[in-house]
Amino acid sequence: MKNNFKPTASLAPVPVVMVSCGDEDCSDIITVAWMGTVNSEPPMLSVSIRKSRYSYELIAKNGEFVVNLVTKSLAKVCDKCGVTSGRDIDKFKEFNLNKEKSEKVKAPRIAESPVSLECVVKNKIEMNTHVMFIAEIVNVAVDENYSNGVSYRIPDNELVAYVQSRYVAVGDTIGTFGFSVKK
Amino acid sequence: MKNNFKPTASLAPVPVVMVSCGDEDCSDIITVAWMGTVNSEPPMLSVSIRKSRYSYELIAKNGEFVVNLVTKSLAKVCDKCGVTSGRDIDKFKEFNLNKEKSEKVKAPRIAESPVSLECVVKNKIEMNTHVMFIAEIVNVAVDENYSNGVSYRIPDNELVAYVQSRYVAVGDTIGTFGFSVKK
Repeated sequence: MKNNFKPTASLAPVPVVMVSCGDEDCSDIITVAWMGTVNSEPPMLSVSIRKSRYSYELIAKNGEFVVNLVTKSLAKVCDKCGVTSGRDIDKFKEFNLNKEKSEKVKAPRIAESPVSLECVVKNKIEMNTHVMFIAEIVNVAVDENYSNGVSYRIPDNELVAYVQSRYVAVGDTIGTFGFSVKK
Repeated sequence: MKNNFKPTASLAPVPVVMVSCGDEDCSDIITVAWMGTVNSEPPMLSVSIRKSRYSYELIAKNGEFVVNLVTKSLAKVCDKCGVTSGRDIDKFKEFNLNKEKSEKVKAPRIAESPVSLECVVKNKIEMNTHVMFIAEIVNVAVDENYSNGVSYRIPDNELVAYVQSRYVAVGDTIGTFGFSVKK
């Protein structure tokens, strides 16, 4: 039996990532959970941000950003980036995160994140509380510990997801796509 | 040090859910991972589906669907719904899933899923491989075991996420939003 509740943004689990934006001189980091994959080829994702955010200005101006995946060891600094504003502090400096030059965009990657997705904005849709940026992933940079040079694998028990305002640990693999019908 | 890889849809973790659509007589279930929250008020999400899918037809026609969250005990049937087509089989019947009447939409909920988000399509954007449906969540139905009638909490160690084509278990809470600055 189910009870009905007033609708809220209750999709779960959702990703939680640190989005870096701006350029080498003027940069910011914003924590985002309102996002998802939207297309396979070319690979595209959406990132929704409130217009009042400092990062919104930088992304709207430059049309670029980097999605940096969050591991358990980054959960605390990810939360810090979510409760502070780039108008008041330089989050890279304040939180001891290192800027890393991106391959295809001017926005810096976060060196401490093991997987950084460099993105170029293709479309922008104004919603009621948020603006959705629809962007193409133009480069994927992966920590050499996750890769053999040819491909890469994000290990189990590393990443963080978001469930009802909680950062939750992602655990073991249950099965790979198609496992239910494999002989 | 990071290595650069050809861009793919590499956001992780992402949700993986069973989307039910159609109506009581003609229904289908599709497994979707290309989705995310896009707006807070009203609560909205995006779901991207290939045009070739049977579910695409039903959703495009009816403008409604239900997002059913997936628990570890549903991982196998979720995978089955992802590798079969509603053109060939009735997935509810074939996989022993029960239809549950929705509160606000004609599309049935999946009774076995503990959290069902009833959605109404507001916008549709054609991408290269997928069509993105942008929909408003109009009702949230939650298993009474998760709720006290007034609010609900999705327990730790219940849900499933998706990482690089793997279904992965979602584990313990690391902290609640703002935990890094709480005294």
